Amino acid sequence: MKCMADLCVIPFNGKISVADEIAQCHRVLKRFNIDIQLHGYGTNLHGDWDEVFAAIKACHQELHDTGIVRIYSSIKVGTRTDKEQTISDKIDAVETRLV
Amino acid sequence: MKCMADLCVIPFNGKISVADEIAQCHRVLKRFNIDIQLHGYGTNLHGDWDEVFAAIKACHQELHDTGIVRIYSSIKVGTRTDKEQTISDKIDAVETRLV
Amino acid sequence: MKCMADLCVIPFNGKISVADEIAQCHRVLKRFNIDIQLHGYGTNLHGDWDEVFAAIKACHQELHDTGIVRIYSSIKVGTRTDKEQTISDKIDAVETRLV
Amino acid sequence: MKCMADLCVIPFNGKISVADEIAQCHRVLKRFNIDIQLHGYGTNLHGDWDEVFAAIKACHQELHDTGIVRIYSSIKVGTRTDKEQTISDKIDAVETRLV
Repeated sequence: MKCMADLCVIPFNGKISVADEIAQCHRVLKRFNIDIQLHGYGTNLHGDWDEVFAAIKACHQELHDTGIVRIYSSIKVGTRTDKEQTISDKIDAVETRLV
Repeated sequence: MKCMADLCVIPFNGKISVADEIAQCHRVLKRFNIDIQLHGYGTNLHGDWDEVFAAIKACHQELHDTGIVRIYSSIKVGTRTDKEQTISDKIDAVETRLV
Repeated sequence: MKCMADLCVIPFNGKISVADEIAQCHRVLKRFNIDIQLHGYGTNLHGDWDEVFAAIKACHQELHDTGIVRIYSSIKVGTRTDKEQTISDKIDAVETRLV
Repeated sequence: MKCMADLCVIPFNGKISVADEIAQCHRVLKRFNIDIQLHGYGTNLHGDWDEVFAAIKACHQELHDTGIVRIYSSIKVGTRTDKEQTISDKIDAVETRLV
């Protein structure tokens, strides 16, 4: 089962800017066989369900490994059985309607 | 790794009320070794990370099996390494401060 | 326009347990003319759209007033034109299907 | 109070592809004095809190006006008192760490 997901990770480490931690997650996500696209409030993920969620779990585990005690993630995930859509397919579908 | 999660599933099936589908998900979730608590806008889930996400995946798969073509879920998930908290622990922690 | 919403507020203040801040939000929310119900991963809110979002804004403002520099909220919101449903109506609609 | 937000709107209208409705929301959002950036699973919004949430409310209202009976939105919102960050500032802060 393929899925499109969106991930926003928040470490409870007392830092106001968490760009270091988001960059670390990005490097973790890139090790997996999924497509990823960073945006201003999270990261789009596309791939096999198991691979996408293994990648998200690895983000939590590897941030904990750096000593962060608590981590929160907000995840959106969509599955559909009619066709497969890439991240750019989804954006294009809207943008072609806006021309 | 234990986690606390919150799940809100939305089937794209054209029905305005989706209580049937939420009830089906509830029955799916109850087959897993996790604690669950329904609320007005989703369901709290607590247990091992892999079990929680296997349960969420099963909700998508079994709703698709009934013919629903597209499904969206919004998920919140938190992990912490300092202590384990149940769903009622979290509610109690706030409510004792409100007395 | 009435709405049903769900709010989860996360202060970036370096504390691992944020039950104090959630309790403060709860006291803020109770000043508004909305129905609220705490659960294990947030709070259900029901009422007029403007009142619900004024309440959420007040949570951010009053937490900032205590010196918290950054605050994140995850919000779900639903509107429907066919009927008005309370928080307990939504839970009952699912639970009656589970008996 | 400025905020950064992320919006994902789901109409309950029985359509599997909702790109038409997302495009309509995009046209609504562009009427407001906010910065917007479409991505694969929603739209980043940046601006004054009241303007951002007026824009989101208008999306719900104008989709209802086309006859859609039920609408769900998932919203993330962040506020900070230390500095103002644009959508591209946030992306750049992560990307400079990935070079």
